[in-house]
Amino acid sequence: MIDTMRWLAEDDCLELLDQTVLPGKISYLKCRDYCDVAGAIKCLAVRGAPAIGAAAAYGLALAAKQLGPVDKISFIAGLERAVHELASTRPTAVNLRWALDRCLQSVHALETDDTGVLYSFLLETAHNIFHGDVESNRRLGQYGLELIPKGSRILTHCNAGALATAGYGTALGVIRAASEAGKNITVYAGETRPLLQGARLTTWELLQEGIPVTLVTDGMAGYLMAKEKVDLVIVGADRIAANGDAANKIGTYGLAVLAREHGLPFYIAAPVSTVDLSLASGETIPIEERDHSEVTSLAGIQVAPPGVNVWNPAFDVTPHRMITAIITDRGVARPPYLENLREALERL
Amino acid sequence: MIDTMRWLAEDDCLELLDQTVLPGKISYLKCRDYCDVAGAIKCLAVRGAPAIGAAAAYGLALAAKQLGPVDKISFIAGLERAVHELASTRPTAVNLRWALDRCLQSVHALETDDTGVLYSFLLETAHNIFHGDVESNRRLGQYGLELIPKGSRILTHCNAGALATAGYGTALGVIRAASEAGKNITVYAGETRPLLQGARLTTWELLQEGIPVTLVTDGMAGYLMAKEKVDLVIVGADRIAANGDAANKIGTYGLAVLAREHGLPFYIAAPVSTVDLSLASGETIPIEERDHSEVTSLAGIQVAPPGVNVWNPAFDVTPHRMITAIITDRGVARPPYLENLREALERL
Repeated sequence: MIDTMRWLAEDDCLELLDQTVLPGKISYLKCRDYCDVAGAIKCLAVRGAPAIGAAAAYGLALAAKQLGPVDKISFIAGLERAVHELASTRPTAVNLRWALDRCLQSVHALETDDTGVLYSFLLETAHNIFHGDVESNRRLGQYGLELIPKGSRILTHCNAGALATAGYGTALGVIRAASEAGKNITVYAGETRPLLQGARLTTWELLQEGIPVTLVTDGMAGYLMAKEKVDLVIVGADRIAANGDAANKIGTYGLAVLAREHGLPFYIAAPVSTVDLSLASGETIPIEERDHSEVTSLAGIQVAPPGVNVWNPAFDVTPHRMITAIITDRGVARPPYLENLREALERL
Repeated sequence: MIDTMRWLAEDDCLELLDQTVLPGKISYLKCRDYCDVAGAIKCLAVRGAPAIGAAAAYGLALAAKQLGPVDKISFIAGLERAVHELASTRPTAVNLRWALDRCLQSVHALETDDTGVLYSFLLETAHNIFHGDVESNRRLGQYGLELIPKGSRILTHCNAGALATAGYGTALGVIRAASEAGKNITVYAGETRPLLQGARLTTWELLQEGIPVTLVTDGMAGYLMAKEKVDLVIVGADRIAANGDAANKIGTYGLAVLAREHGLPFYIAAPVSTVDLSLASGETIPIEERDHSEVTSLAGIQVAPPGVNVWNPAFDVTPHRMITAIITDRGVARPPYLENLREALERL
């Protein structure tokens, strides 16, 4: 499996797979400071809620290295500036904030004033978040297995795969686990306009794994279900509110409505770091709106008339009542989510 | 308004606006024989159910010209070969077959053996179909007015505009009529992957008319409705069965499900030539599947990994129970469609 990101110890820098040019080109961006990481998150070179959490943690380690030998108050102030910049790159995914908070807390908890030690410790925390994410995805995949009958034909949206995480994936983690368990599944990948993460990334990951995949445009999902070509839907999430409402890539909500219309299970797969208990419902999840050019052009080619108005929300919110179950790295949560998500978070 | 097609009398040929290169380029294809017309329909240089009906009628006139001075039996046989070729270009839209049948019938009804006269007569029939379509769209637009409250925010899909017809449009005809009537409407245009007729053609038509339009990707429709940004949906149709089931551009069915979920009216706008009483339900409407490359590339750029499997139906079928009303050029038909569509067809 290809590395979504890797830390180059000999060079003290982070390499991020540039997902904007996949699958045509495999190229890594070298991030030598936290601003490079912030830029890579903003332009979606690295994307997917768990992956941007891990990348941001490495970004904070780079910020610590940049600060060099200063007193601890200046060091903390410098880190907080970096946290602010990294956290504000993308507003919807809560894993970003979760990872940065975890890093900051670990620094606050240390007694030492030695910024070299603090840097090493931050880097260690980033490694832990990175490796922890892979493990948590594998656990999540195993928990998800029980929900996937043999021979299932699964529709997914966007990319909640190895590329969206530190490795293995959330929705695609369940799909990988089901495939590894010999369940003979097949997958439909929604292309996911505007940025085509389904067409470019999900199909590419699944082809590499030898899992049968068929690409469809987003508008085909309804007819796919009406023609009884799909048995269940699994997608990832960028933030899940306390009541189970889930923000995910734009188009997810429509799939949930269609799944219910056709009596199909609709699953969210996400680690507990995606759950934000501070929000009572999905109403208050901030939804990022991105540049119009993502919709009006592709690879620099204008496809819509100049000057046309565009609405380009990057995410939507699926109400908890439409979600059959939320597959986490601490087990499968079913309704009522208000109790069962909290319980999953407290589980070890 | 730009011409979708025009007959050049001085040159005895049909010019078709090449819609595959809009909005970047305005260029006309010269069709000197019926094979040129068939090719233009196949590659979607001309598209939209009523437009391909009119283009095919001109194609048949070109076939008559090509046949030259032969006996009537050979002439009819030659025409029938052309009808077969023209009709088989695209299987879903019934207007194509309707127009060709009307032309053939007009030839059978004539007493003369003079193929020059027969050619003139076929050309006249094509002109009648062409001009009749513009008139019927204007009538349809007026009938549709009653369904559009002042200030409506209307979602449409694909292009059911002047470009999809001989002029004025069906779904966009209603939108034009509502705008001309001072109803202060605004429009959301779904981009309509894979071929982006919404992004390329609908926004372009509406910008030219000065009707406010906002472009969205197909996956945004659900969230658009959830955020209460749209009041009703109007789309065209390629074939309507006797019970009101309607085939239209892929993605339409999903919009109908979403509209019902949000309590929004869902209207089909189509001339009666789109109604096929020979089919009891939408189950038996043939659905064209098109080339994989339409999905795996966008604007000529490969966006998916080579070799990925694709499902690419060009249309889907919306069940009659999800359609609030069908706006025709002979009035608005409401459920039960089995009676009310038939009645509309018999109306003059």
